[in-house]
Amino acid sequence: MSRRRHIQALAIANALILSCARDSPAEPIQHDTEHYVLLHQYAEQWAAEDEEVESKLAEIRQRNGGKRPNIVYILIDDMGFGEFGIPELNRIRGGKTPSLDTLAKEGVAFTRFYAENICTSTRVAFMTGRYAVRTGMELTKVTPPEGVGFQKKEVTIAELLSEAGYATHHIGKWHMGDIKEAYPTNQGFDFASFPMHNQVSYSFLTRDAEVYGRTSSFTPTTVDPDYGLDQTFRLYDWMTQVEGKRGGKVREWGIESGERPDIEFYKKVNDRFQDQALASLRELAKGEKPFYLNYWPQIPVAILNSTDDSECQTPNCGRWANAMQVVDGYIGEVLKEIEALGIADNTIVMVMGDNGPMKQEIPGSGYSQWLFQGTKGQALEGGHRVGAFLRWPGVIEPGSVFGDMVFVSDLYTTFARIAGNTEGIPRDRVVDGIDQTALLLKGDTHGRRDYVHLYEVDKLKATVKQNMKIHWPAPGVNPAMAKIFNLYWDPREENPLLYQGVWAGTPFVRMRVQHLRLKDRFPDWEPARGIPYEDVENIRPETKEMVETWLKTYGDAKDVILGVEAAGN
Amino acid sequence: MSRRRHIQALAIANALILSCARDSPAEPIQHDTEHYVLLHQYAEQWAAEDEEVESKLAEIRQRNGGKRPNIVYILIDDMGFGEFGIPELNRIRGGKTPSLDTLAKEGVAFTRFYAENICTSTRVAFMTGRYAVRTGMELTKVTPPEGVGFQKKEVTIAELLSEAGYATHHIGKWHMGDIKEAYPTNQGFDFASFPMHNQVSYSFLTRDAEVYGRTSSFTPTTVDPDYGLDQTFRLYDWMTQVEGKRGGKVREWGIESGERPDIEFYKKVNDRFQDQALASLRELAKGEKPFYLNYWPQIPVAILNSTDDSECQTPNCGRWANAMQVVDGYIGEVLKEIEALGIADNTIVMVMGDNGPMKQEIPGSGYSQWLFQGTKGQALEGGHRVGAFLRWPGVIEPGSVFGDMVFVSDLYTTFARIAGNTEGIPRDRVVDGIDQTALLLKGDTHGRRDYVHLYEVDKLKATVKQNMKIHWPAPGVNPAMAKIFNLYWDPREENPLLYQGVWAGTPFVRMRVQHLRLKDRFPDWEPARGIPYEDVENIRPETKEMVETWLKTYGDAKDVILGVEAAGN
Repeated sequence: MSRRRHIQALAIANALILSCARDSPAEPIQHDTEHYVLLHQYAEQWAAEDEEVESKLAEIRQRNGGKRPNIVYILIDDMGFGEFGIPELNRIRGGKTPSLDTLAKEGVAFTRFYAENICTSTRVAFMTGRYAVRTGMELTKVTPPEGVGFQKKEVTIAELLSEAGYATHHIGKWHMGDIKEAYPTNQGFDFASFPMHNQVSYSFLTRDAEVYGRTSSFTPTTVDPDYGLDQTFRLYDWMTQVEGKRGGKVREWGIESGERPDIEFYKKVNDRFQDQALASLRELAKGEKPFYLNYWPQIPVAILNSTDDSECQTPNCGRWANAMQVVDGYIGEVLKEIEALGIADNTIVMVMGDNGPMKQEIPGSGYSQWLFQGTKGQALEGGHRVGAFLRWPGVIEPGSVFGDMVFVSDLYTTFARIAGNTEGIPRDRVVDGIDQTALLLKGDTHGRRDYVHLYEVDKLKATVKQNMKIHWPAPGVNPAMAKIFNLYWDPREENPLLYQGVWAGTPFVRMRVQHLRLKDRFPDWEPARGIPYEDVENIRPETKEMVETWLKTYGDAKDVILGVEAAGN
Repeated sequence: MSRRRHIQALAIANALILSCARDSPAEPIQHDTEHYVLLHQYAEQWAAEDEEVESKLAEIRQRNGGKRPNIVYILIDDMGFGEFGIPELNRIRGGKTPSLDTLAKEGVAFTRFYAENICTSTRVAFMTGRYAVRTGMELTKVTPPEGVGFQKKEVTIAELLSEAGYATHHIGKWHMGDIKEAYPTNQGFDFASFPMHNQVSYSFLTRDAEVYGRTSSFTPTTVDPDYGLDQTFRLYDWMTQVEGKRGGKVREWGIESGERPDIEFYKKVNDRFQDQALASLRELAKGEKPFYLNYWPQIPVAILNSTDDSECQTPNCGRWANAMQVVDGYIGEVLKEIEALGIADNTIVMVMGDNGPMKQEIPGSGYSQWLFQGTKGQALEGGHRVGAFLRWPGVIEPGSVFGDMVFVSDLYTTFARIAGNTEGIPRDRVVDGIDQTALLLKGDTHGRRDYVHLYEVDKLKATVKQNMKIHWPAPGVNPAMAKIFNLYWDPREENPLLYQGVWAGTPFVRMRVQHLRLKDRFPDWEPARGIPYEDVENIRPETKEMVETWLKTYGDAKDVILGVEAAGN
């Protein structure tokens, strides 16, 4: 880009930033810059629609005895777009997901739902309404202990819903830090049961997984006693899963000192999460308050096919599809319980994937690239576009298909709106989530997003606007060399366009400059750092020892006593 | 393969061939060898089902005043699986096919329908019930004149249905020869209106197409008068489209001597085919007889996007999707006409693609590889698997999805059965089409095919059995080097399997040996050869001159007078 064009672009960006500061009377939410391009064009229309939305929400509330709708949010690992829940495509895969199919049939299938491209990032973007890169949590961590997590000053959707009078539970995978300020119990949940780390740490990195050839080299037997000097370069004795109540200490469950995870352990843990999800539903349904339940299963990530033929049969029979079938059974039980509890009519159920297929497991697992190119971790459509389904009886017409673009962070703003707490969304930072309530209430074509920036870790790698997509060239490469694709023509991003690219290049560069320029005012945050496993009241001796070695080696504050020691453990 | 294993395989093959000769009392149809593997396992079950099928057909017939069902068969160029007609995927493509979507919703979407991988081959396989390679028509020809076509001794589905008392019309693309014995009017149709060649010959190979940069180098202006010696190495003055009645002469229409095709010409021709299809419907509906109408549009193959914005708008806007929208409009008019004529209840309407996306037109057209790898002409799933939809009111449950494997040749045997003329299917040759009437009548999982051989021209390149697929290695390469895929795990055929391959290799080699061994008894035929454009009563002088030069150069029988001359033309 010439210097002159660069300056022009900056001027536009600044004008937009200033104009949005002037934009509304009270304190508007600070969105990402590109949002204002649409806002300036649709402000009046959206304002009118929002009045409709408000009265419709009030009407729904009235229909349900004054109660706001419950929200059950089920987030599934690695379920890219079309993997399951579209009957024609299920046949191609040889998978059977009757519960998911039913959910889709009774609600809506989204065809353009973007997640971030990796577990932690998507989860953080959902919880905070912000690109993971803004929170400092863009780097997925799997090596325990971590001593890292997302900041307490993040205002999570759980906190917003709590403020709005919701009872809030989280069950299952968390993967957003092993320090106490990042525990769900300190981030807005009344109750939470969650693994301290990614499930890889206690499924694939086990002796069992070694036996089955799924991994190698990091169990005790493979450490060379003569040369294996670094005591922290080990993957065992980590914390498994804990549970606890808001603000209190948590307890590790399911494991005793001296035990090590194996396949049976993983299976039992997953079964218990499922039982806890159902128990939470029952408990929450009894209460006066509306409720919000996160249920984030650890499978379909699995070491083996199910060892129980009767529970899991698919013509595909790959670990991936088989495990999805188990997850589908979980979803079925959840739907059945919701029905049995008589709360179906006032409960939003959403099921979605957190990113595309697991790259590293192709082809041994039955994962594969699919309609789109790309996998987990990549800023290609295959990494970001996920299966997403939502049921809201009496609001969303059964069998709907929504083609509008939605980004995972939009759920934050949308759920907050539905719960009646848009006010609680913080105004001192960028919130990327756009309110898509109008889409849910008015249906297909009523979305308010036409772009998304796609990161790989902390690098902006691609930007999508409408049906056009740019792959940002490496630093130092002229943007004129950027590849631009028409996703309708070329969903696999294989054939960059010439003339369309020349046209779209300028607005794309503007979008990039504006997006990055906003970081001058609102810099990306660092993640929180601290002592791993604080406030776990029953830490195992071997875990404690491991953490002590880790702290001696890496800890910033060596004079700090482990929280667990203070608890006399 | 070791010699010993080779002999074993041959022994099995022979045993099967002999056993099938003993198999049934009268004269059974000679199917491809692999069919007998299933027949031996399901003979009793299928016989019992066939009785059900017979009584169900009788019942349907009775319900419709004793009339067999009408069949409207719409074959669309280059529409691979999932391209259109699945709402969730339409959104990905940015295409809108409301008529096709409606048809799918009112009938069945097939998810595992294999065509051959190129136009002529699929059309021949449909018309004759045989792999194109058996008929000698495996090489698609586009250079007029050809002097080639499929043999009169082929017994076409039109002949079978005529025998069964059907009125038969063919409208649109034919592409199976320019000699009189291959004309639809000599292959079982009461009336036909059809282009003599592939539509490329008078759409892309025109001056207009040159102007629009779609092609170059073969219009008159580009022939070098000093060096362009070979007068047959030209692509103009060919025969366009003709029409005529059973056994009679045909007349070229839509063009006068001295005119050359251009975009407007192509558009007018396509519009007239559409008008003729509707006129045929009206005429056929009035008759006493049940009817069979082939309608094979020439678009979506198109030089340009539609020049008429009002008739064709899609967010995709590529030639491919835009032209499909026009085709979808055609389908809509056909469905509407069927409704208006009051014949919907007793009319089977089938719409399907003839092969995967047009390789040569990626990416300029909006064609792209899609869920599967591969394109037109390739023995990859993307070349062979097509969108296929069928509506049969009162028989097929609306909104069905059939996962059973179907090959295009199966329609031959199935339509013959439905029309009550299985007897007419010839017994002196191999007929690959398997009767799939039970699938239509009893629904998903009642298919009778579990394999298909995939050719590229005359080379067997791949074989599919259930969910496994082998890519046959080049001649002289050990079959142990063959790549074997699990299509459920890996629909894009990217990651060959090791152990599963070792297991499946043996049955695959047996299948190959048996399949090819049967050709010793039933060798592949040569296509018919003859004089181009015989029995065209109004051949243009320039066309006549071109053919004469061609005959002088290539004709086998120089003393044979052009048929058109004999007609005093």
